[in-house]
Parts: sequence; structure tokens; C-alpha cells
Amino acid sequence: MKVIVDAMGGDNAPLEIIKGCAAAVQSQDVDILLVGDEQIIRRLAQEQGISLARMEILHASEVITMEEDPSTAVRRKPDSSMAVGLKALAGGEGDAFISAGSTGALLTGATLLVKRIKGVKRAALSPLLPGKDGPVMLIDCGANVECTPEYLLQFGVMGSLYMKKVCGIASPRVGLANIGTEECKGGDLQRAALPLLTEGCDGFVGNVEPSNIPLGAVDVVVCDGFTGNIILKTIEGMGKFLSGKVKEVFLKNTLTKLAALAVKGGLKAFKSSLDASEAGGAPFLGISKPVIKAHGNSNARAVECAVRQAKFFAQSGMIEEIGERFTK
Amino acid sequence: MKVIVDAMGGDNAPLEIIKGCAAAVQSQDVDILLVGDEQIIRRLAQEQGISLARMEILHASEVITMEEDPSTAVRRKPDSSMAVGLKALAGGEGDAFISAGSTGALLTGATLLVKRIKGVKRAALSPLLPGKDGPVMLIDCGANVECTPEYLLQFGVMGSLYMKKVCGIASPRVGLANIGTEECKGGDLQRAALPLLTEGCDGFVGNVEPSNIPLGAVDVVVCDGFTGNIILKTIEGMGKFLSGKVKEVFLKNTLTKLAALAVKGGLKAFKSSLDASEAGGAPFLGISKPVIKAHGNSNARAVECAVRQAKFFAQSGMIEEIGERFTK
Repeated sequence: MKVIVDAMGGDNAPLEIIKGCAAAVQSQDVDILLVGDEQIIRRLAQEQGISLARMEILHASEVITMEEDPSTAVRRKPDSSMAVGLKALAGGEGDAFISAGSTGALLTGATLLVKRIKGVKRAALSPLLPGKDGPVMLIDCGANVECTPEYLLQFGVMGSLYMKKVCGIASPRVGLANIGTEECKGGDLQRAALPLLTEGCDGFVGNVEPSNIPLGAVDVVVCDGFTGNIILKTIEGMGKFLSGKVKEVFLKNTLTKLAALAVKGGLKAFKSSLDASEAGGAPFLGISKPVIKAHGNSNARAVECAVRQAKFFAQSGMIEEIGERFTK
Repeated sequence: MKVIVDAMGGDNAPLEIIKGCAAAVQSQDVDILLVGDEQIIRRLAQEQGISLARMEILHASEVITMEEDPSTAVRRKPDSSMAVGLKALAGGEGDAFISAGSTGALLTGATLLVKRIKGVKRAALSPLLPGKDGPVMLIDCGANVECTPEYLLQFGVMGSLYMKKVCGIASPRVGLANIGTEECKGGDLQRAALPLLTEGCDGFVGNVEPSNIPLGAVDVVVCDGFTGNIILKTIEGMGKFLSGKVKEVFLKNTLTKLAALAVKGGLKAFKSSLDASEAGGAPFLGISKPVIKAHGNSNARAVECAVRQAKFFAQSGMIEEIGERFTK
């Protein structure tokens, strides 16, 4: 098992990426193909005393920045770490690809260079959100602003397979994000997708209101990319807002600061339960090989988790299963 | 100033409604027209020792339940407290109407019986969300699942006027809910609404991502009713989820329970800052008289806040100003 990792993407690249890969080699028993500026990577590893055992380096002279137009970035910078990594994946030099770089560039690049699974209409970005009883997949989350009911059906099937085969949930429950549970709710898209999902998606339980998503009503939330991105960003904002409020409570006076000491461990766990990176990166489902978007501010720990996830994804056989399912 | 209140709507009706009205009479210097079953109201008031000073009762023999079809409820139950209250408002027997009953029935009923302001294309449900620097208005939030760009422009103008005239914000900042700040972001609706709002809405600052809404990026968030309802329900779910997580932290052991005592006041304030009812009910903007939807589980305090809000709304003159603006 060899995981290809974009060493240059994300806020903390390349140092945290290299550290995370070194940790993953130890904990996950995988080989790593690091893609990026070879000189920088070797120098950093030496300076910081990071072992490059079981890691190869594939040199790439350029980096795609967050400022670049995502739709053309990979084409305009063919020697970027992201483009080189995706081409290596397409060419069979590794079993999965991880990048913490520009989401948009990765989506476009993966579709262009690695291609979709035959029969898949649109690939979807599918992050795992923190939930009461474990992670919840939100699919799609921004790759496809405009969707047809058929796309949503495919998202449901792919999301369900991922939660079963990669996350180990025996019978994933799938819901359609909507503003009410009744059949008549939502716009044309939701009303047309509901019967398709009911008919064609295992474990489909009907409409789910976002108020019940973090409470674990379902394992997979299906939606168009606009709605999914709105949900994702609202969750992000509320996490920040409420963490700040909790902090205020403890900074009030000496007594509350003492109280903070007593619950320090619990608060740390609370913060980490809100931390999307603990659940791993967002798989990009529908692409013919495993591609994972790690969070832009991934630290070494998040990179290590993403490598574990990439390994499970590559071993799961779900891509082959999607292919069989959608070409029938 | 006389506020008409649906005594029978909501989870805690009629007792908490009557209590809240009695408190409002004291704190807000208003008269109240309570609409509902006169016998029940008088008996409860007597049993509980609630003064009905400055309160009249308008008898209504029926109640609209949450199970009824919202689109026909008011027509099918003309003697319900909601229908009788709305007709009293339309007939000038009071200056504003408050109900904690079915949102859908109130929206349909208000449009049917009280009518829209001339020139207003669609009325919008516009709750105030908790935010870092004070309440943030989300308009529309479910009254109009399908919207045109022109509706969104009107929502922006009405929301801005409300925050200025009723909430006292000198120069409200208005944003369009979107999945990115760039002009090209979103679907057809967002891309078409952006130039209209830029041109026609005072204080418009462009697209706003939901991650920045609770952090106080804007005072008014404009969106179609589907998106608004998705945002509202995601916020609700995250509030519940995170409150539960914080509670867990404190219930862990004796030490953490002691710590809970030290931050009790702060945690109460934290909880109340998440409590939508503290910010008041949701005004229904675009209707020719002030109509306010109080939260379904409103207690006496929430009803008192809603009465204060109704009073400010009725005194603000904003309905006349909307009329002038949109008939020009």
C-alpha cells in the first residue's frame, strides 16, 4: 500500500505534512510517495530530525496557491505538487492521493487527470462532520452547486457505501437534507430526488432536517453542493462562536479559572470532538481512484489520520463496487 | 398601544402566554387583547392569581393544532384563536399580533387576512439569531422556498429597515448568504440577486458565508426560504449538540461538578445567549401590520419579550416606509 501525499499543500506545509507522513509510516504500515520540492523536503527532514524511511520523494517544482483560479490551476501549473501527484495516482504509482491544498483545484484536477468512475455523473466532496454518535457524511458539499435528482441518488449510494466499507457502519442510514420531514417539503430538486432515493438507495430513511444532523439522525446526509456547503459553513461558524462563548465563561474571574483547570481534560476532548480533522479528510467520491482532501490547516496529526483513511479507502474495494453498480 | 396575542398557540399555551402578557402590561406599558377561550383564560387567571388588568379577552372557540395543514388551517377554522386574532388586527382592533402557534398557518393566515404591503412581492419570516455582537436577522427563513432575485432585494431592504428602526442599529450591514464571497459564487439566484442588492439595498456588503454569520459579519442575512431554513435548523442542531457536549464535561466526576458550581452563572448566560426567544420572536416582514411569530415553546419571559418587540415594531413606522419605498 502506497499513499501519495501532496507535501506542499495547506497552511502548515511542508513541515506538518512530512511529520504526519512519518508518523503514518509507523502507525499505519504504509509507504508514502511525497510530492513536492525535493530539496526543501530533504533539508526540512534533516533539520528537524524526521526519518524519511519508507518515503520516496517525487519532485515537483511548483505549488498551487489559494489565490489561483481553481478551475484552471492544475492545467496552468502542470509541475505543481498537486498536478504531479494526481498524475502519479492516475499512472498507478500509488494507491491513493491526499492534499491539504486548494479544494477547488483538487476537485477540478482529480476529475481532469484521474477521471470519474464509469457511470458516475458527478464526483462529490464528502466531508465527515462531528456528530453525537460518531462522524456523519455530508455529500455533496460544494463540488456541484447545481444538481439533478439523479446526481443526488448517486451521492446517496456512494456515501452509504463509503460509510459501510471504509467507516465500518453495518447499515448506514441515509437522509435527504430538507426543511421538513414531510414528502411535500423542499424545492423541485428535493421533491424529485425523494422517490429516486427511496427506490434506489439502501438504508434511505427520507428527509432529514439539519437540526437533527449533529444529533446522529443519519449516517449520510445527501444534498446539492450549495446546500451542503451552507450546512458545513454554518456548523463551522457555530463551532467557533460557541467555543468562544465557553471560553468567556471560564475567563471571568479567578474562581472560574480554577474551574477551568478541573475540566481541562474534558474541554480538550470537547474541542477535539468539534475538530473536523480528527474524523479525517473529505473523500472525493466518484473519482476512479481514492482522492482525499485534508483540511487546509491540517497539522501532523490530521495528516496521519488522512493517511489511515486513504489506506482504508484504497483497501475497501468500494470504487470497483460503485463502477459495477452504476454501469449495470 | 394595544397588542393582540393568540392565547392558545404554542406548547405552553395558554398559561405561559397569559403570564407573559401580565408581565408585559407591567414592564411595557401596553394594553393586551387576548384571543382564545374566554372561560379557560378567566379560570386559569383566577386559579393562578394572574391579574388581567389592561387585558381584554376576545373569545375564540377553536385552536389550530400543529397537525393541521398550514395552508388551509385558517380558512378551515375561522373561529380559531389565530384566525380571530388576525381578523382583529386587520380590523384595527389592535396594533400588532403575536402567536406562538403553527408558523405555516400564521404565514398563510397573515397573507390572507391582513394582506401584504402594497408593492411587496412576498412576505418573509425573519427570525433574529444569536450572534457575537447581538442578534442577526435571517430573511427569509422558510416562507418562500422558491425565490426570484427581486424577492431577495426586497428582503434585504425590509430586513435593513427593521434592524434600523426596531432594533436601533444605526447602519445595518446586509449580506447575501452564499458559499463564497466572490461574485461568481452560488447558483443562478445568488448571481442574479447580487447586482440587484448592490444597487438597491443600503448597507449591502456582498456575499456572506454562513461561517461568519454567528461571528457578527453582518446584521441582516438575505436568502431564499429554503437556504434560510437550512441555516436556522443547522444552528438549532449545533446549539443542542454543543450544549449537550458541555454538560457532559461537567457531569464527569465530583471535581467537575464542583467546577460547574463555579461557572454556574456564566453557563446560564451562555445558554440564554443561545436561546432564540431572548432576542424575541420572528417578525413576518412585508405584511401590512406587525405580525410576530413567537417560538413554539415560548415561556412567559419569551412572550413578554415578543410583546416588547411588537410594540417597538408598531411604533417604528417601518411598514409605512416600506409601502412608500416599494410603490415608487
